[in-house]
Amino acid sequence: MERSRPRIPPGMRDFTPAEVRRREWVIGRIRRIFERYGYEPIETPSLELFETLKGKLGDEGEQLLFKVLRRGTDLEQLRLGRVASVTVTDYDQVVDYALPYDLTVPFARFLAMHPETPRPFKRYQIQRVWRADRPQRGRYREFCQCDVDVAGTAAMAADAEMIAIMVEALSDLGFIDFQTRVGHRKLLDALVESAGGDAHLQAISVAIDKFDKIGEAGVLEDLRARGVPGEVAGRVLESIALEGPAAEILARLAPRLEGTRRGAAGIAETRELFAILDAMGVPEKHRRLDLRLVRGLDYYTGPVYESVVERPAIGSLTGGGRYDELIGRFTGQPLPATGTSIGLERILDVMKELDMLPEAASSAEVLVTVFGEETRADSAALAAELRRAGFRAEVHLQPAKGLRPQIAYAGGKGIPVLAILGPDEIAAGAVTLRAGPGSQTKVPRAQVAEALRALLEGR
Amino acid sequence: MERSRPRIPPGMRDFTPAEVRRREWVIGRIRRIFERYGYEPIETPSLELFETLKGKLGDEGEQLLFKVLRRGTDLEQLRLGRVASVTVTDYDQVVDYALPYDLTVPFARFLAMHPETPRPFKRYQIQRVWRADRPQRGRYREFCQCDVDVAGTAAMAADAEMIAIMVEALSDLGFIDFQTRVGHRKLLDALVESAGGDAHLQAISVAIDKFDKIGEAGVLEDLRARGVPGEVAGRVLESIALEGPAAEILARLAPRLEGTRRGAAGIAETRELFAILDAMGVPEKHRRLDLRLVRGLDYYTGPVYESVVERPAIGSLTGGGRYDELIGRFTGQPLPATGTSIGLERILDVMKELDMLPEAASSAEVLVTVFGEETRADSAALAAELRRAGFRAEVHLQPAKGLRPQIAYAGGKGIPVLAILGPDEIAAGAVTLRAGPGSQTKVPRAQVAEALRALLEGR
Repeated sequence: MERSRPRIPPGMRDFTPAEVRRREWVIGRIRRIFERYGYEPIETPSLELFETLKGKLGDEGEQLLFKVLRRGTDLEQLRLGRVASVTVTDYDQVVDYALPYDLTVPFARFLAMHPETPRPFKRYQIQRVWRADRPQRGRYREFCQCDVDVAGTAAMAADAEMIAIMVEALSDLGFIDFQTRVGHRKLLDALVESAGGDAHLQAISVAIDKFDKIGEAGVLEDLRARGVPGEVAGRVLESIALEGPAAEILARLAPRLEGTRRGAAGIAETRELFAILDAMGVPEKHRRLDLRLVRGLDYYTGPVYESVVERPAIGSLTGGGRYDELIGRFTGQPLPATGTSIGLERILDVMKELDMLPEAASSAEVLVTVFGEETRADSAALAAELRRAGFRAEVHLQPAKGLRPQIAYAGGKGIPVLAILGPDEIAAGAVTLRAGPGSQTKVPRAQVAEALRALLEGR
Repeated sequence: MERSRPRIPPGMRDFTPAEVRRREWVIGRIRRIFERYGYEPIETPSLELFETLKGKLGDEGEQLLFKVLRRGTDLEQLRLGRVASVTVTDYDQVVDYALPYDLTVPFARFLAMHPETPRPFKRYQIQRVWRADRPQRGRYREFCQCDVDVAGTAAMAADAEMIAIMVEALSDLGFIDFQTRVGHRKLLDALVESAGGDAHLQAISVAIDKFDKIGEAGVLEDLRARGVPGEVAGRVLESIALEGPAAEILARLAPRLEGTRRGAAGIAETRELFAILDAMGVPEKHRRLDLRLVRGLDYYTGPVYESVVERPAIGSLTGGGRYDELIGRFTGQPLPATGTSIGLERILDVMKELDMLPEAASSAEVLVTVFGEETRADSAALAAELRRAGFRAEVHLQPAKGLRPQIAYAGGKGIPVLAILGPDEIAAGAVTLRAGPGSQTKVPRAQVAEALRALLEGR
C-alpha cells in the first residue's frame, strides 16, 4: 500500500463535528419553513446520465460538469497496464454519467419519471451539487443547495409563496436588514418594447443585470458600447428607476406599456402577486418591486426574486423565479413551475462571520471517568445506567492515566459534566459529579440521574 | 435542446417524499443511538483523490470505483469536436478523482488531515457511498452507510460499545429476534495454529467464513479441496463448534491455545470484552461468542461482529470489527481503531417487507381550499394566519375548480384536515374544518386555530 501526504480535492471540504452541527442547525430551520408551507422532500442520485445534464448549460457550462468514466472500456485495460495506449474517437463512449451541477434538472427528470406524484407537486430538496468552477473564497466545488419548487401551476400564489418562504427563512435565521427584490420578465420585456428597444432585448437585459455593480452611468456606457440608441437606453433607464410601493410603480408603468405584447399580463400578474403578499402579511420592509432585477438565467419567464442582506452589505442569499418552459423543454410536456434556492454555504459563511450561529453542543452530556483497568467495568455499568435513564453518556475509552487527561478530554469535546467513579466512590456507593473546577458534589449512586438532570438544567 | 426518454443510472434511485421520510425516520433513530454513546458527526466530500482510494482494494475492487475524468485534458477537445481522436498513454493523466466506496478510507484520510480532533476520536458518519457493482435486488450502486468508529484506543471497552450500539439500534428499530455474533481474529489464528494449520490459515479462514452457507460438511469438503490435512481440519472444526456462554467457551478453549502466539491475548481480550458487555447490561440473548465468525475483510485484527436477524431469517444487518493496522498503513502512524457499519438499505428493505415502518406523514397538517380566484387572497391570508399560529398549513395553488379536486389532492398527499373558505364562510366570518367525509364543522374565524388543534390532537 502506497503512502502519500493525504489531500482532498480542491474546493471540497471535510466537516468537523462542530461544522456538521452548524450546518444541520441551519438546514433544520430552513427545512422547517419549507414544511410549514406544505413542501415535501425528495432526493435524487448523485450521478445522472451525462445525456440528462448536457445540452442544458451550453459548451462553457458543460465544462463545469464532473464527468464519470464509463466502466469496462479500453481505458480500464490501460489502468491495469494491459495495453500501452488507447485511442478515443467518441467522447460518449468513455463518459456515461456526470455529477449534477444543480437540483433543477434532476427535479425535471424526476417529474418526468414520477407521473404518480401529485400536481401541483410541491417539493423541497436539500442535497450536494458539484461545479468544477475555479475555487475561491466562498465558492466551493461541492456545495449544498436548499431548493424549494412547485411544478404544475402558473398561479401567482405559488410565486408569492416563494417570496414568503425566503423572507420567513431569513427572518427565522436571525437576519434583520434584508429585502427581497421582485422583478418580472414580462414587465422587463414590455418596458424594452415600449422604449423601442425590441431589437436589443438581450443586450439591454445583460446590461441592466449589472446595475448593482456598475450603476446607472455604467449601464448607459455599456448600452452605448452594445449599440443601443441613446434615446432607447434613456427611456429604459427612466422606467426601471421607478421606485415606491408596488401598486404605485405599476400604476405609473401601465400607460407606458399599453400596446406591448406582454405588458398587460406583466402588470396583472405583478399586481396579483403583491396583493397576495399583502394578504399573507409578508412584511413590506422585506420585499419590494424592483424593475432592475433581471437575474441572469435564460430560462426565467415570469417573476424573478432574490433576497439581499443590506446591512452589512453581503449580497444575495437566495434567488429564484418562474420557469414555465424549462421542464417542458426537458420532458416534452409543458409544466409551469416556479422555485427558489437558498444558498446554504453563503448563509453559513455570513452567519459565522457575524457570529449568528449557536455554539455547537457535544453529543455527550456527561463523561464517566475510568479510574483504572480494574474499575472499568464499574464505569461502563454507570454509563449504561445513565443512558437507560435518558442521558447521552460517554465513558472514557483510553487506558486510565489519572483524572487530569480525562478532564482535558471532556473540556476539548465540550462535555459539560464529568461523573467521577473512583475506588472511594465505588466503596461508598456514590458518584462525584463535576460541572467545572469549583463545582463538585458527591451524590449517592441511587440519586445520580436526578442530580445530573438538575445540573444540566441549571446550566 | 435534445429530448430523450428520461432515465436514471442503473442501481441508483430517486426517493419520493414517503421514501425520504422513511429513510429519515430510520437514520434519525440510528443517529440518536450513536449520540447517546458520545459519538460526533463528521462529513467528507463525495469525491476523493483517486490516489487516496486506489491501492486499498486490489485490482478487482478498483473496478468498482466510479472514476472522474480530469478536467481540461485533450478529451475535452474531443467533446467539443475540436479534434477527431485522442490517444491516452497514462491513465492518471485522465482520471484524478473517484467516488468513495466506503466511509472507512475517507475517515482514515480525515484523521490524517485533522490532527486537532480529540483522541480517541469517536465519530459517526452517515453518507452516500458508491460501488459499480452488478445491480441486483437489494444491492444498489449508490447507497447510504451509517458508520460509527472510534480511533485512537485499543481498549476492549471500545469494541463492547460497538456491540452495545448495534444491539441498541436494532432493538430501538423494533427488531426482536436477532443476535450479535462476536468472533476474534486472534482466537481464530491461535486455534488454527494449535491445530497445526498455520500454513493454511488463509484457506481455513476463507472456508470457515462460508460456514453459514455451506454447513460443516461443506467446509470440510472445501478444506479438503484446498489441501488442508483432514486431521487439521477436524481439530479446527471441533474448536469452532464450541457453544455456550462466552466464559465457558473460553475456559474450554484456553488449554488448547496454550503455547500459541496469539492465544493468550485472544482469550484475555475476549474475556474482558464479554465482562464489559455484562457490566453494561447488554442482553445476553442478543450477543454470543461465535468462533465461526470470520468476516471476510483482510484488515480486521481483533474482535469482529455482526448482527443477524434470525426470525425471519434475513441475514446480517450490521457488521464491523477492530482494525488496528489499517489507519497506520494509510497515514504512516499507527492508530488502533474499531468500528461498525449499520446497513441502512438492507434495514429499510427488511423493515418495509415486515411492515415495521411508521406511515409517512405529509408536511402539511391542513389544506386551505380556494373557492375562486376572487377569494384566493382570503385563503392565502387564512393559511398565513394558521402558520403564524404554529401549524403547517398549505393553500391550494391550482386554479380553483370546485372542492372535489381539492379534497382529492389533500387525500393523495395525506393532509388530514381541510380548512374550507367559501363565500358563505367569508361572509359569516367563519371557516369549515373537514377531517373526513362525515366530519365537518363550521367554526368562527377567531376560533379556527383552537378548533384545528383539537381536531389534530384527537386523531
